[in-house]
Amino acid sequence: MQPLGGIGAVCREVDALLVVDAVATIGGTAVDTDAWLLDVVVGGTQKCLSIPSGMAPLTYNDRAERKLLARKRIERGLRISVEEDRAGQEAPIRSNYLDLGQLQDYWSPHRLNHHTEMTSMLYALREGVRIALSEGLEARFSRHRLHESALTAGLSAMGLELFGDPANKMPMVACVVVPEGVDGERVRGMLLHGFGIEIAGAFGPLKGKIWRIGTMGYSCRQTNVLHTLGALEATLLRCGFRLPAGEAVQAALGVYERSGFSC
Amino acid sequence: MQPLGGIGAVCREVDALLVVDAVATIGGTAVDTDAWLLDVVVGGTQKCLSIPSGMAPLTYNDRAERKLLARKRIERGLRISVEEDRAGQEAPIRSNYLDLGQLQDYWSPHRLNHHTEMTSMLYALREGVRIALSEGLEARFSRHRLHESALTAGLSAMGLELFGDPANKMPMVACVVVPEGVDGERVRGMLLHGFGIEIAGAFGPLKGKIWRIGTMGYSCRQTNVLHTLGALEATLLRCGFRLPAGEAVQAALGVYERSGFSC
Repeated sequence: MQPLGGIGAVCREVDALLVVDAVATIGGTAVDTDAWLLDVVVGGTQKCLSIPSGMAPLTYNDRAERKLLARKRIERGLRISVEEDRAGQEAPIRSNYLDLGQLQDYWSPHRLNHHTEMTSMLYALREGVRIALSEGLEARFSRHRLHESALTAGLSAMGLELFGDPANKMPMVACVVVPEGVDGERVRGMLLHGFGIEIAGAFGPLKGKIWRIGTMGYSCRQTNVLHTLGALEATLLRCGFRLPAGEAVQAALGVYERSGFSC
Repeated sequence: MQPLGGIGAVCREVDALLVVDAVATIGGTAVDTDAWLLDVVVGGTQKCLSIPSGMAPLTYNDRAERKLLARKRIERGLRISVEEDRAGQEAPIRSNYLDLGQLQDYWSPHRLNHHTEMTSMLYALREGVRIALSEGLEARFSRHRLHESALTAGLSAMGLELFGDPANKMPMVACVVVPEGVDGERVRGMLLHGFGIEIAGAFGPLKGKIWRIGTMGYSCRQTNVLHTLGALEATLLRCGFRLPAGEAVQAALGVYERSGFSC
């Protein structure tokens, strides 16, 4: 959970835009766009909103809009220096598809056709957001925190180490250090093919070093947490990792019991 | 129907790529990609394939692939001159989303994640293509020609003029010259709100001058042709345009009768 407080104020001092990738967070934890002075927030549908993938809801403020419209004007024929072009500042928009200025015209009263919208998906988006709001955002955020607690209690009880600063952990993903001597990809394969459970690996410098276990949206529920802990324990035992058998699921059940949660 | 024969050979002589927009044609008429030496063909799902909108099926050959992979290598750190950049030749790929090189990695055996695919739509695509192939491509092309004949016979019988060179008319769209003294947008509004039929206007220099009537995919059928002719006739009469009442639908019915078509 990148701490975002304070960054927005500095961005305004230096006339920079603050653009936030909230793909994995919207619907699962608070994203206080205006209070945090975020200029642009880009979300996703397929994570904590549990809506079919393929869309990126976004919001931006008037600061960002002024920038967009300035670029648009340049595209329409004003001169542009090579230096500006190289720096990528106020450069002409090269993609006809990813042009928010044209998208604004599309949803303006003129309804200027920009591209052909994927209408079926918009119905899915509306229904998914309706379901999320029926649960209530605060209840949804609280649900993500509860199952995170149960999952991480189970992981710790297995003797596994969480990766990253606990103070900034996001509630919908648990990053787990692959233990010394364990083949992380083999564990992922056994979980997927033997138990029908997919957990993620990682990219870049963390490739092969951590697993990422998601508890997002619809999938963020007790049955998934308990099955995943049981399956991961069995898989790790099978791979020769020494752990206190049976304790992971008990630790998670303890969290649920203490929270008064049942179902 | 842009005649494409011969262009491909010239493109190869001058080492240019021939990229064809077949959005409105695939599924409605033959697109002989290899025989016509087309290097890239970009299609759409929402026209003659009658599959939910939001996807662009495409095909490209090894000539196009070499170009793509060359751009990709440059993006990975080779130098690029200002002149190349300004000319847009071999320039770095600016859009992470619209990067076919990365998409190739996605569908390679490595399955390198590029973006989150809109999986629900892929199921729709598969089902839609299955339906198209169940009808048979030749039968589908023939169906588009039949209903085109009926529609254009009806339009001519109303005294309307088709726009464009008849030798190159595409079978799935009829472009009609808006008659002198008729407000084309008023006619479109009356058709839409009074009869539930949407026909298109046009963009650019043809804006306000022609209507475009589509007979595409699932919508390309007798009931639609007859209703549209009847509704257009009534609307034009209402707008004060003089035409021989009743003849449009009769002309279309004559085409169906002579073709032995029934349903």
